[in-house]
Amino acid sequence: MQLTISHRCQHIAPSLTLAIDARAKEMRAAGMDVIGFGAGEPDFATPAHIVKAAKEALDLGMTRYTPAVGTMDLRKAICAKLKRDNQLDYQPADIVVSNGAKHSLFNVFQAILDPGDEVLIPSPCWVSYPEMVRMAGGVPVFVPGTEEEAFIPSYDELVGHITRRTKAIVVTSPSNPCGCVWSRGQLQALADLAVERKLFVVSDEIYEKLLYDQRKHISIAQLGEAIKRQTLVVNGVSKAFAMTGWRIGYTAGPREVMQAIGAYQSQATSNPNAMAQHAAAAALNMDQTCVCEMVQEFERRRDAICWRINAIPGLSCNKPQGAFYVMMNIKAILGKRYKEQRIDDSMTFAEVLLREQKVAVVPGVAFEAEGYCRLSYATSMDNIQRGLDRIGAFVAALR
Amino acid sequence: MQLTISHRCQHIAPSLTLAIDARAKEMRAAGMDVIGFGAGEPDFATPAHIVKAAKEALDLGMTRYTPAVGTMDLRKAICAKLKRDNQLDYQPADIVVSNGAKHSLFNVFQAILDPGDEVLIPSPCWVSYPEMVRMAGGVPVFVPGTEEEAFIPSYDELVGHITRRTKAIVVTSPSNPCGCVWSRGQLQALADLAVERKLFVVSDEIYEKLLYDQRKHISIAQLGEAIKRQTLVVNGVSKAFAMTGWRIGYTAGPREVMQAIGAYQSQATSNPNAMAQHAAAAALNMDQTCVCEMVQEFERRRDAICWRINAIPGLSCNKPQGAFYVMMNIKAILGKRYKEQRIDDSMTFAEVLLREQKVAVVPGVAFEAEGYCRLSYATSMDNIQRGLDRIGAFVAALR
Repeated sequence: MQLTISHRCQHIAPSLTLAIDARAKEMRAAGMDVIGFGAGEPDFATPAHIVKAAKEALDLGMTRYTPAVGTMDLRKAICAKLKRDNQLDYQPADIVVSNGAKHSLFNVFQAILDPGDEVLIPSPCWVSYPEMVRMAGGVPVFVPGTEEEAFIPSYDELVGHITRRTKAIVVTSPSNPCGCVWSRGQLQALADLAVERKLFVVSDEIYEKLLYDQRKHISIAQLGEAIKRQTLVVNGVSKAFAMTGWRIGYTAGPREVMQAIGAYQSQATSNPNAMAQHAAAAALNMDQTCVCEMVQEFERRRDAICWRINAIPGLSCNKPQGAFYVMMNIKAILGKRYKEQRIDDSMTFAEVLLREQKVAVVPGVAFEAEGYCRLSYATSMDNIQRGLDRIGAFVAALR
Repeated sequence: MQLTISHRCQHIAPSLTLAIDARAKEMRAAGMDVIGFGAGEPDFATPAHIVKAAKEALDLGMTRYTPAVGTMDLRKAICAKLKRDNQLDYQPADIVVSNGAKHSLFNVFQAILDPGDEVLIPSPCWVSYPEMVRMAGGVPVFVPGTEEEAFIPSYDELVGHITRRTKAIVVTSPSNPCGCVWSRGQLQALADLAVERKLFVVSDEIYEKLLYDQRKHISIAQLGEAIKRQTLVVNGVSKAFAMTGWRIGYTAGPREVMQAIGAYQSQATSNPNAMAQHAAAAALNMDQTCVCEMVQEFERRRDAICWRINAIPGLSCNKPQGAFYVMMNIKAILGKRYKEQRIDDSMTFAEVLLREQKVAVVPGVAFEAEGYCRLSYATSMDNIQRGLDRIGAFVAALR
């Protein structure tokens, strides 16, 4: 044999978000004042009562293996959360706890996809969905949404992409990278379609708590027993409780799929970190005021960043309804030049902006959204103001 | 489409070890005095200085994402450990930190195996190797070792199982479930074979520190630059530092394989728990006295459990040289009856022993080792004495 890498791994796309991030970090390490809009995590500390619970777990000696699918305590806390927040009835046996919601999603695709199975992914979309589908041998099928329709694909677009190989549809509400939120009507139409055509729905609800303008979260699994039986609800504590580094996500779904995921996880990774599970249970069980305070601050920043973007001639954005990202439309300035360099796409825009103005944004091409750049407002108001000053200066200098 | 589970997940073998363990736990919950020899983890607490480091990480706010492959601090600590303990030179870019050594092994097989690729697995073997190989589309090929040769397959056996589809060989020294340790000569022969035939070596060294009778650990990667270039060294902090629940393992290997693993992990799970990474670095960097004390206690227990087993007519065992498991030979009593029930195999032996004498052991069939049961001595001396009293009484009652 030859000492070669598997085909599966030869074809994993290098992450553009990480490439930009690495460049920004190098520049910072070299002493430059770089302003970053790339972050995918809250810039808040994990609330004190959650940290306290982790220390308590250590003092109680919770340093051993737990059940591979997660502790009974945490799975009970997740069931209580799904009931309280989402009016969803699940038993602990319907829950698997994994190393972050990313890992939960990875497991879901491994459990439901055979080679050649297609998964509809509304785009713009999070970078990891298509890779995860491919890692399970599946085929990602992008269903584009337009900015006019808040980046949510129309019902006809969805139907038009279904083939006899379609196995699942991904729905992400609120979404990364667009911050869009699916309405009850849109979710109901999707649910009816999925039930009629016998498709799994993979519902990524990790940004559930980050909703603005008094919006309320709706899980597609709430819309009746039929759709609940074929939905995998994925969520976690990372974004709502500023616990990204703790790596606790979970999936709730039909028993036979969850058993498959449980068996897979028991052989692939075993249980997630034991003390983080204890802390996650504390996060779900305790008073949720900390979440409200963080959301209010994000809403203030969202308003500021959107106002600033739309005030720059040549740039524009929709006001996102959730998460902490905004998609900045750069189509009007494509084809212009910065000094000698022509800016023809989002990647070049991001590279030249970083080099010339020390501002890091993520090019839309990373999310199947050429003509846009994603800005995260999980950064201070001061950074938002200074960063947009620089972006304004950059755009003003284009010819 | 139909709402079916993937073929990959339909074929994951249910874990016999977990089935026995679940039964034992039910009995304990029902108030019975069950003595367990099933545990795959040290019965010691994580040393205090490591727990302290985790709390320090929390106080320092290390609750955010780290690089997907692990923090630079931890990867440097791993490089220093590999140099100090194993005389191996690696750079941080050659290291990926994962959610436990199990996850490290899973990633290795995903990175090197295409469908149909064969992996030689010396047996008896750990239950997860064949499953992990299958999960990557590969074919596990068992190479049996005999008890007379300390369960290590002969060179001729290894050569005889190589085909044009063989991609890798697994070596586990010290081993689970046998506690056997490969000699330098055996490792050298394997290294020469792997280099000659261009095979990856997956060297699982998780039990490295648990060696008895003044033995010293040898990593196959130490045996020359050629074999190092095609070896994936897998290790972690779980067994040496009683940190099983923390889930920190790592792989060191050739740069191109490690890059593939890094890309795969970045899309599948991202970084392991951030504070556990900090604690693992502390474990590797600090004074190692705690490890010696644990090993001395395990050695005392090993001597006791082997003496007791060999004193029971009809049972026998080799004295293991590492890890904390012993393979108890039950061949002489197979075919006998306990009351009305005929004991024909290790599964029946384990089931009847648990039911009648409240002693949990793992049947050898779980490890491709019919005619044996695995006993873990990661339990108190008192449990060892009482448990062997019961096993003795059980065997004496066989007709």
